[in-house]
Amino acid sequence: MDFDLIVIGAGPGGYVTAIRASQLGLKTAIIEREALGGICLNWGCIPTKALLKSGEVYEQLSHLADYGIKIEGRSYDFAKVVERSRGVAKQLSSGVAFLMKKHKIEVIDGTATLQKASPAPKVVVALKAGGARTLQAKNVILATGARARTIPQIGLEPDGEFIWTYREAMVPKACPKSLLVIGSGAIGIEFASFYRALGAEVTVIEALDRILPVEDEEVSVAARKAFEKRGLKFRVGAKVTKLSKTKTGVSIALEAAGKAETLEAERAIVAVGISGNVENLGLEALGVAVDRGHVVIDTHCATNVPGLYAIGDVAGPPWLAHKASHEGVHCVEHIAGLKPNGLTAPIPGCTYAQPQVASVGLTEAAAKAAGHEVKVGRFPFRVNGKAIAAGETEGFVKTVFDAKTGALLGAHMIGGEVTEMIQGFAIAMTLEATEADLMATVFPHPTMSEAMHESVLDAFGQVLHL
Amino acid sequence: MDFDLIVIGAGPGGYVTAIRASQLGLKTAIIEREALGGICLNWGCIPTKALLKSGEVYEQLSHLADYGIKIEGRSYDFAKVVERSRGVAKQLSSGVAFLMKKHKIEVIDGTATLQKASPAPKVVVALKAGGARTLQAKNVILATGARARTIPQIGLEPDGEFIWTYREAMVPKACPKSLLVIGSGAIGIEFASFYRALGAEVTVIEALDRILPVEDEEVSVAARKAFEKRGLKFRVGAKVTKLSKTKTGVSIALEAAGKAETLEAERAIVAVGISGNVENLGLEALGVAVDRGHVVIDTHCATNVPGLYAIGDVAGPPWLAHKASHEGVHCVEHIAGLKPNGLTAPIPGCTYAQPQVASVGLTEAAAKAAGHEVKVGRFPFRVNGKAIAAGETEGFVKTVFDAKTGALLGAHMIGGEVTEMIQGFAIAMTLEATEADLMATVFPHPTMSEAMHESVLDAFGQVLHL
Repeated sequence: MDFDLIVIGAGPGGYVTAIRASQLGLKTAIIEREALGGICLNWGCIPTKALLKSGEVYEQLSHLADYGIKIEGRSYDFAKVVERSRGVAKQLSSGVAFLMKKHKIEVIDGTATLQKASPAPKVVVALKAGGARTLQAKNVILATGARARTIPQIGLEPDGEFIWTYREAMVPKACPKSLLVIGSGAIGIEFASFYRALGAEVTVIEALDRILPVEDEEVSVAARKAFEKRGLKFRVGAKVTKLSKTKTGVSIALEAAGKAETLEAERAIVAVGISGNVENLGLEALGVAVDRGHVVIDTHCATNVPGLYAIGDVAGPPWLAHKASHEGVHCVEHIAGLKPNGLTAPIPGCTYAQPQVASVGLTEAAAKAAGHEVKVGRFPFRVNGKAIAAGETEGFVKTVFDAKTGALLGAHMIGGEVTEMIQGFAIAMTLEATEADLMATVFPHPTMSEAMHESVLDAFGQVLHL
Repeated sequence: MDFDLIVIGAGPGGYVTAIRASQLGLKTAIIEREALGGICLNWGCIPTKALLKSGEVYEQLSHLADYGIKIEGRSYDFAKVVERSRGVAKQLSSGVAFLMKKHKIEVIDGTATLQKASPAPKVVVALKAGGARTLQAKNVILATGARARTIPQIGLEPDGEFIWTYREAMVPKACPKSLLVIGSGAIGIEFASFYRALGAEVTVIEALDRILPVEDEEVSVAARKAFEKRGLKFRVGAKVTKLSKTKTGVSIALEAAGKAETLEAERAIVAVGISGNVENLGLEALGVAVDRGHVVIDTHCATNVPGLYAIGDVAGPPWLAHKASHEGVHCVEHIAGLKPNGLTAPIPGCTYAQPQVASVGLTEAAAKAAGHEVKVGRFPFRVNGKAIAAGETEGFVKTVFDAKTGALLGAHMIGGEVTEMIQGFAIAMTLEATEADLMATVFPHPTMSEAMHESVLDAFGQVLHL
């Protein structure tokens, strides 16, 4: 037996799993075909946040008069903005290398495939350095992640120049003057927000009838309004029929409300979803159950093949790093016989645009669809003292409660620093908090987080500042 | 009977109490001698946050190269910075007027004194407009707040020109070139941070052996280091023997470590604490128990005189607006016969400097002093992905747990947006969370709030990114 555990894929789900395994005394290896940290650290969550920060800082420079401050002229060095983002990614990837060493986790650079064996599939690694290794472990965890979904039939695939996925959109040579973003999920909206901040003309195209369609409907409406104020344009309910290259950029044909329209721009970003990395792993030969591009798992992340587990993006939505690491920790604690609590904690979701969007639990519509009689509270930042003092009055907090039990079912926020605030509701939901618990909590004054409290009070007719 | 309830003082404690009373069907009046919103909205929490925001935005302009951004020159218009702050205060004060009208609360502009009566003391109001009204209510709540403590014997009192309290420090005509701040509590540190951001040479003088002395010791150490990086200077363990005016400013004599020293500056801010507004209310004649400048109250905020209650600053520390409104809501729910849960929720505290400081519950030292065997976790922002991406790596999260029960006893944070993050720990403590609850919570990635999770994991040997 070479290892107690082999983890395939070193994104946050994979490497966190390996660390926890090592803490639990398991002899662990991790296999990565590209870079430690995976998409998230190298091409996703982290480098986009660096870009977005530059964009945010730059855009704020046009509002300085509001604060009594003057500057003479503003400009950005696009290469430096990108370089900073790459530096951040590199720093974090090196950090993962350090953590692997510290926890005595063997890192194997190469591409893994599985072969039938017992007690778990054998792992054959085609090494980056050349040659191959065949490894046997007691357990194997697939954490191979996902990649941008493409639809070649209608031109939705990167061409290395004009048409980008998140990967090309992260490292262009210059900021395009005009940009089409296809898809208004978190990834599409974040790039749209970033490029708009740097001055690009951006149009976002969404097939469904509202942007950020996984969010609560009121958040979608408010987000669109706020983005439009910043000059972003939208086409919703729009079916893309063809994306094509032109001599100088791209052209897109779409149909919305029965009408055909053609839009042109210098560049396009394809952000129409995610496909799990289930290919070329040998899953078919093993008979691993795969459903619509994702490995099927049980409540302990086990596949239908003994000794083989899957976590994170490859095991299905939500495609979020913190969902992956949460599953990984759970999975490996289960493997180690710890009897973890289960994967019942709600998974918050964040969009780091300006304004930010964050949510956890059920939307109002989903709560009703699930049969709950609901009480709903809302509180806008425009009457929150801290928000007024900081000049960040956009947005609101919405909370959804079960009318009978008072249980918090979901929370939905849009505004300033809501991505840092949503954890309070995540903690509350994990603790099965009711309205009484949240009402009894003292929120510090003056903070934007007081709007969380007021939203709860509002749901029960006790709002103070409205 | 003129009213069910009279509230004296319309700071956040007072006006929130009046709103809740009105929601509960009580016929309510509120008496204010100065401005609706009290010190907090007009001369405290809110206008300082507006000033601090201007300072923060201005200071960030010297770090733009970090983000790939360039500007030609930066300047501030001090009058506009102050004007904005006053505008914010005015807006919020008008907001309170609107809320009073909406809730049919009678606002009486004047100065109240109490006279013996039953079922509650009579309230005699010397009206601002001239004349007086004598009112009888079933219950009276004192919410008269507090003011800056002064020590005239050694010169620690405002002179209207060179020596300021928070009030004068909020509306000066120009930014002083040099400034002495006496006292390193939240108020002193916030002004020091603001004036430093605008370029003043600032020295903070603290009698105790560390700055922000109510905070956890490690936070004090880190805060001092971070402030010193920004060019702030400190004298700790320093006894002020005399503050005097000179022709062009101020001179202060102090003793530290047995040595005498004299410091000079253009201006000084006295921030050596708070005195409850217990004078000229007629409390002596009523026999109201007052201890060291604060009205003595029981667990329902009742004084020793029937029908008379006190909440907020006048009833003692912590002198925080959210503590006042929390007490007020509790008090009036008790008066209305609702049997509220009690004043057991922990009160978070925030300092809005750069970096920010926020905490709730017991410091490590206090927990040990209270007899707890503790487990302590720490996580620094310098290895947090979002903090690195945003370039805000200063600070850390520290959590203190009871080693036997796993109960969260306290949390202490310094860094970027910690004042918006501390509510998560406040919710957790109100719900009597243990380490298992917090470990089971999924914190969104990438956020600075992940450091909260890691700090908990660290306390129990399970930290992931260290």
